[in-house]
Amino acid sequence: MMRRLDTSDASFADDFAALLADQREFSADVTSVVDQVLTDVKTRGDAAVAEYTRRFDRVDFAATPMAVTAEEIAAARAAVPDDVIEALKFARDRIAVFHEKQLPSNERFTDPVGATLGWRWTPLASVGLYVPGGRAAYPSSLLMNAVPARVAGVKRLVMVVPAPDGHLEPVVLAAAEIAGVTEIYRIGGAQAIGALAYGTESIRAVDKIVGPGNAYVAAAKRQVFGTVGIDMVAGPSEVVIVADDSAPADVIAADLLAQAEHDEVAQSILITASPTLAGEVDEAVAAQLEVLPRRAVAEASWRDHGAIIIVEGEDEAAALVDRLAPEHLELAVADPDALAEKVTQAGAIFLGAMTPEAIGDYVAGPNHVLPTSRSARFSSGLSVFDFLKRTTLLGLDRAALEALAGPAMTLAASEGLDAHRLSIARRLRAS
Amino acid sequence: MMRRLDTSDASFADDFAALLADQREFSADVTSVVDQVLTDVKTRGDAAVAEYTRRFDRVDFAATPMAVTAEEIAAARAAVPDDVIEALKFARDRIAVFHEKQLPSNERFTDPVGATLGWRWTPLASVGLYVPGGRAAYPSSLLMNAVPARVAGVKRLVMVVPAPDGHLEPVVLAAAEIAGVTEIYRIGGAQAIGALAYGTESIRAVDKIVGPGNAYVAAAKRQVFGTVGIDMVAGPSEVVIVADDSAPADVIAADLLAQAEHDEVAQSILITASPTLAGEVDEAVAAQLEVLPRRAVAEASWRDHGAIIIVEGEDEAAALVDRLAPEHLELAVADPDALAEKVTQAGAIFLGAMTPEAIGDYVAGPNHVLPTSRSARFSSGLSVFDFLKRTTLLGLDRAALEALAGPAMTLAASEGLDAHRLSIARRLRAS
Repeated sequence: MMRRLDTSDASFADDFAALLADQREFSADVTSVVDQVLTDVKTRGDAAVAEYTRRFDRVDFAATPMAVTAEEIAAARAAVPDDVIEALKFARDRIAVFHEKQLPSNERFTDPVGATLGWRWTPLASVGLYVPGGRAAYPSSLLMNAVPARVAGVKRLVMVVPAPDGHLEPVVLAAAEIAGVTEIYRIGGAQAIGALAYGTESIRAVDKIVGPGNAYVAAAKRQVFGTVGIDMVAGPSEVVIVADDSAPADVIAADLLAQAEHDEVAQSILITASPTLAGEVDEAVAAQLEVLPRRAVAEASWRDHGAIIIVEGEDEAAALVDRLAPEHLELAVADPDALAEKVTQAGAIFLGAMTPEAIGDYVAGPNHVLPTSRSARFSSGLSVFDFLKRTTLLGLDRAALEALAGPAMTLAASEGLDAHRLSIARRLRAS
Repeated sequence: MMRRLDTSDASFADDFAALLADQREFSADVTSVVDQVLTDVKTRGDAAVAEYTRRFDRVDFAATPMAVTAEEIAAARAAVPDDVIEALKFARDRIAVFHEKQLPSNERFTDPVGATLGWRWTPLASVGLYVPGGRAAYPSSLLMNAVPARVAGVKRLVMVVPAPDGHLEPVVLAAAEIAGVTEIYRIGGAQAIGALAYGTESIRAVDKIVGPGNAYVAAAKRQVFGTVGIDMVAGPSEVVIVADDSAPADVIAADLLAQAEHDEVAQSILITASPTLAGEVDEAVAAQLEVLPRRAVAEASWRDHGAIIIVEGEDEAAALVDRLAPEHLELAVADPDALAEKVTQAGAIFLGAMTPEAIGDYVAGPNHVLPTSRSARFSSGLSVFDFLKRTTLLGLDRAALEALAGPAMTLAASEGLDAHRLSIARRLRAS
């Protein structure tokens, strides 16, 4: 029986707290295994990577090259249906256009005391992109990670993807080429993260690693953080839909299930002031589940983590959304813009009942890599900023230095940092 | 004997690799202690925080309130010399002006197919600011962390600072008031991080924690990451100075020592094509060390981690800078702008011999919280972006949905996500 909450119930505060505390992630402790693999790759390079790959993926680099060849990529592309290739290009182009608008400007100005101030954005020199193996390799995720890197100006974009028993999904190789990936290696797991972070004889180290992976990959990314940059470690996906009577129940149900089919621990929540709509959606979910290919997954997600919350009205809905801080927020209401103004915590907002999240997952343009598990309170979806770094600039002439020296020397002295103070005083004394 | 490298030496590649590998951080493994403290604070709240504070800081919350009072702040402010108060305000105002220029714009546009796209930046609702106790509590760092948060629009800015034996530095409380901190609690260590992350009866949980701390604080921040956001865990500070014959040797030496006085594991490196300047700087460092109050620290840093690198010319210097990716880069050369253009990896650049890093540490305006230990390759200094999050927006009408539906459904089908495809198809079928 799916969870149903009502803000007018006496038990609501407790019920909602339980929903917020819903533990959807159980990460196995793989730290010690991962630690050993990373140390081994750092020490022995290619030899270690080859051994782990033989053991875990049953691929022998004595017989198959570690790097995926241009011929393999061409063959993969030829094996993918034309409509999929065209859809990938369509998605790539829209993602690129949207992310180009995010590119920030450099700044440089002279302030009233004559100091030159500013900053400069530069792309990361190299980025590693982890792509999971087998069916978990979503070409759409590959585009969402790779295209913003290319838009930011990253020149070297190194993809790693495990090839269990030698198999690589053709659509993934085709998507990599379309996205502008510059190198591909058929390795995975913690050994691939180690190779990207430390470098081996065959693979030059990168500056940052992005992309989803299993518990081993996630643990390895956490451990190499500092040596290289990493993206956020994503949790299970989630959607909150706020709907009023203007929204068709079957469409709301379809969107709840689109989220639920991802994973047994995905979460779909409907918030509505209409008990009628709530009832209709509940029935529509049950009916649509009957014919869904991924029924088992979607049913478990909806049963174990789904919820319908009955509220008084939109202000209350907005307040609950802010507490949930969902990855995806659909506003299937008559005036979605007005409601969007009341919400401050969400990774992405989908405005109106004609805007299914699935369009955003694939082709709208905004990134589908978004903060999960309430982290939208303090973080944002993937963007060009994840592939840029900022260097600040300061330039002084004697007049500007004289204008700033006094307070700086006062503070240096008050902090007991005399060499700091002297580094300023010495310049003022110089002729 | 300080390290001296020369790119014309046969051993240079090895020497430079050794310099890059210079291990300046030895973090004690405090994970299990920290884990226990965090679990205890999460479970028992105020009671646990009070126990740890009594044990570690010898402060009893039965006698002294956990929250610092308005009277204490007023008294602290009265105890700080006027020139220090004025210098703090001067710094605050300049930091605010610089960071206001970083504030990004919201974006909203309609694309050729009629889709509404955009994004919106909102401030984090609440931020915790860790300030170390005793002499390690630098008021300048407090301003550098707090002012950008206030500029970003963060309403609730919660400072924690340990009060060993009940003592709080008056200048730190004064700086907190000047910076716009809204709550102050006299707690520190992992227990303070736990209180900020999980909340207690007295302290509401925050969304992100920033600020420097010891090994326990750093480990605690790493462990609560995910529950809340955290800033980068900073390593020891470092400067690289590229200088030519136009730079006065005594000034270069003073700047090398200003860095070295921070910490025995701070690092100061001079890169120059002039063996003459190199010799003069080396002598000037020795002479200036004689009279430096923090001589022991600066001498150890310069001896153990300092280096002078002799290069052929500016192109070679720029290439080495990029490999070092320093936190601070001073360009004490005739044409610093031209050289700055050749460098891509640095946290902050100081242009010309009249621009001491110490001005940037205190009053210039740019942030002095910068990426250390080569992390400028993939990250940036603290900025308003650390206190903002971005929500992307997508809105479709029927025509826009129809224009995007085909490729999205093709990709959903190719990924085996039928409920995704159906969530689109169902809308197209609806009248």
